[in-house]
Amino acid sequence: MKRVAILGSTGSVGCQTLDVVRSFPEHLSVFGLAGWSNSDLLALQIAEFSPSVTWSRNLSEEDLGVSDGLTEMATHPDVDVVVVATIGFSSLPPTLAALRAGKTVALASKEAVVMAGSIMQREMQSGGKLFPVDSEPSAIWQCLQGENSEVSRLTLTASGGAFRGRSLDQLIDVTPEEALAHPTWQMGSKITIDSATLMNKAFEIIEASWLFNVDWNKIQAVIHPQSIVHSFVEFHDGSVKAQLAFPDMRLPIQYALMYPERISGGFSEGMEIGELGSLEFYPLDDSKYPCYIEGLRAGKLGGTYPAALCGADDAAVELFLDRKISFLTISELVKRVLDEHKSGDESSLEDIVSAGNWAKTRAYELAGL
Amino acid sequence: MKRVAILGSTGSVGCQTLDVVRSFPEHLSVFGLAGWSNSDLLALQIAEFSPSVTWSRNLSEEDLGVSDGLTEMATHPDVDVVVVATIGFSSLPPTLAALRAGKTVALASKEAVVMAGSIMQREMQSGGKLFPVDSEPSAIWQCLQGENSEVSRLTLTASGGAFRGRSLDQLIDVTPEEALAHPTWQMGSKITIDSATLMNKAFEIIEASWLFNVDWNKIQAVIHPQSIVHSFVEFHDGSVKAQLAFPDMRLPIQYALMYPERISGGFSEGMEIGELGSLEFYPLDDSKYPCYIEGLRAGKLGGTYPAALCGADDAAVELFLDRKISFLTISELVKRVLDEHKSGDESSLEDIVSAGNWAKTRAYELAGL
Repeated sequence: MKRVAILGSTGSVGCQTLDVVRSFPEHLSVFGLAGWSNSDLLALQIAEFSPSVTWSRNLSEEDLGVSDGLTEMATHPDVDVVVVATIGFSSLPPTLAALRAGKTVALASKEAVVMAGSIMQREMQSGGKLFPVDSEPSAIWQCLQGENSEVSRLTLTASGGAFRGRSLDQLIDVTPEEALAHPTWQMGSKITIDSATLMNKAFEIIEASWLFNVDWNKIQAVIHPQSIVHSFVEFHDGSVKAQLAFPDMRLPIQYALMYPERISGGFSEGMEIGELGSLEFYPLDDSKYPCYIEGLRAGKLGGTYPAALCGADDAAVELFLDRKISFLTISELVKRVLDEHKSGDESSLEDIVSAGNWAKTRAYELAGL
Repeated sequence: MKRVAILGSTGSVGCQTLDVVRSFPEHLSVFGLAGWSNSDLLALQIAEFSPSVTWSRNLSEEDLGVSDGLTEMATHPDVDVVVVATIGFSSLPPTLAALRAGKTVALASKEAVVMAGSIMQREMQSGGKLFPVDSEPSAIWQCLQGENSEVSRLTLTASGGAFRGRSLDQLIDVTPEEALAHPTWQMGSKITIDSATLMNKAFEIIEASWLFNVDWNKIQAVIHPQSIVHSFVEFHDGSVKAQLAFPDMRLPIQYALMYPERISGGFSEGMEIGELGSLEFYPLDDSKYPCYIEGLRAGKLGGTYPAALCGADDAAVELFLDRKISFLTISELVKRVLDEHKSGDESSLEDIVSAGNWAKTRAYELAGL
């Protein structure tokens, strides 16, 4: 029985994590729940799962019997796995503390690794484990099982998002509603917009370089409209492994929570390979995805550029969803913020959070808000 | 440095095995070579690789410095890996003896497992290892690395052979030359005809059930014309792994010889996933492949039916290549021999060899020869 703490339990991944827990009552129990703005849903979750510890930004700590907040929950001796499924910087301190305490962290918030991958690697030296909770890095992780040889290349697949096939000219007037209509995945709004801009894929490439210790020049993304093959790993002998599954975030969540066991009874209906028809793979034309270019630029620059990238993108996506800027202005804002950024120390959490906050504020300013 | 003995060094897989040895002189050396009819090629191989032990059906043992033949070569204390790449029954005793002696056997002769899988499992109890040398079972083997959970399904891919897409009516007059024109693989003539009839895929399903201890009803084949994905493994949590490579038999040979290491410098050019275009998968319509139906029938019947299947198919393919029977008569002959067969004991090598020999003779008789 693994005891799970969920940071961000009321978001999309948090709710799906609880779905997984619900499906495996003999293997998983909820130790802690932390939610942000949706306190009604959090109250329902608390009623259903009776966690030992809870945390909410909107309720006083006394009301929910919380002691010292997120970090205490994430490092509590009774916690086996901490699921980090939050947006923004607030998850960084508890994530790092959990790794330092030797916990297993199942990380859905890829921005946390993008911003603080260097610090996470350092904190893991005390025995903590970082497991990805997202289909692409989970696919790579699964393909690496049992392999002790270096990889020659990681290839992440990208559906291409809501606007695959469109030229930049055709994106000038797109609305948030159009950008939120993802062809294959049901996800939260931030990540769905990041999928439409392919910023999400740049985040995943940066994340993969930290998670799997693979050089930048060995990681690429390709377009795969069907979202069935989630990633490929190529080895030095020319052999390539791939992981496939129907698009369902509960599968990588289950894998991270159950690892290394694979247990039936969850969400698998089985995949009829003979019914797949045609799976297509073609090169990613990055000239159509300026956010992807900016994302990789920040990743390669290192330092606190990735943190600035996350802050600027956070602001830009919020502004787009609030109809304050156009879709194409997202990448322009990100680019302008990165151009202005003065990098700090990537091994300092303070520098990272301050770069992220600066970038977010600066993006709002540049948008005239 | 692994010392390799190759049974069948002058055949297609044997020559490609030597190509692998040539590419990795720091990891592999040739301890023994055994050839059958092509003594000129064998002499060239002996001159190049200077093996300690050789064997040839066409030369006297003294001429080549062999002592006690194949079994002695396969069980010699200085041999690390025995590559079995022969056709027919002659490889069975040395293969079984090698397993009994705790050797690693890299088996390209899938008919050997089809006929004697039960005995091989028994002989392996003394520590011998059986590694597949063929793209599909090698793919499954690679996908199973590091997994300790039961699989829910194995899906082997089939190119569909030279006549994919044709109805049975369109196969009445096909010539050996047409049947030998395989769309994606360069292989020996027997296996190329077995690919056109899909008997080869039935053999692979039977082989996989023995190699990976998976139930019949959990193994299937699908048509995949591009021969890029070599097989799929589905796990109980709904996750599917696949292995991909360009069609080149040297890759599974290298994997079996180098296992568990993956070393560059062989034949890998790297696979550009974005250039793959469309990979197609569709159901195998077995009504077009009567040999496939007969093959699975024999496999499911068990006993010495698989041995009779191999003997009958051996004869029928020879007869077709010699233009004595038509393409469609291959399956008819196999069916008639299986219908007449009285099964023996699958755990007795004598029964297996005698069933195989009987079936081969009976197929010739039924063809009026």
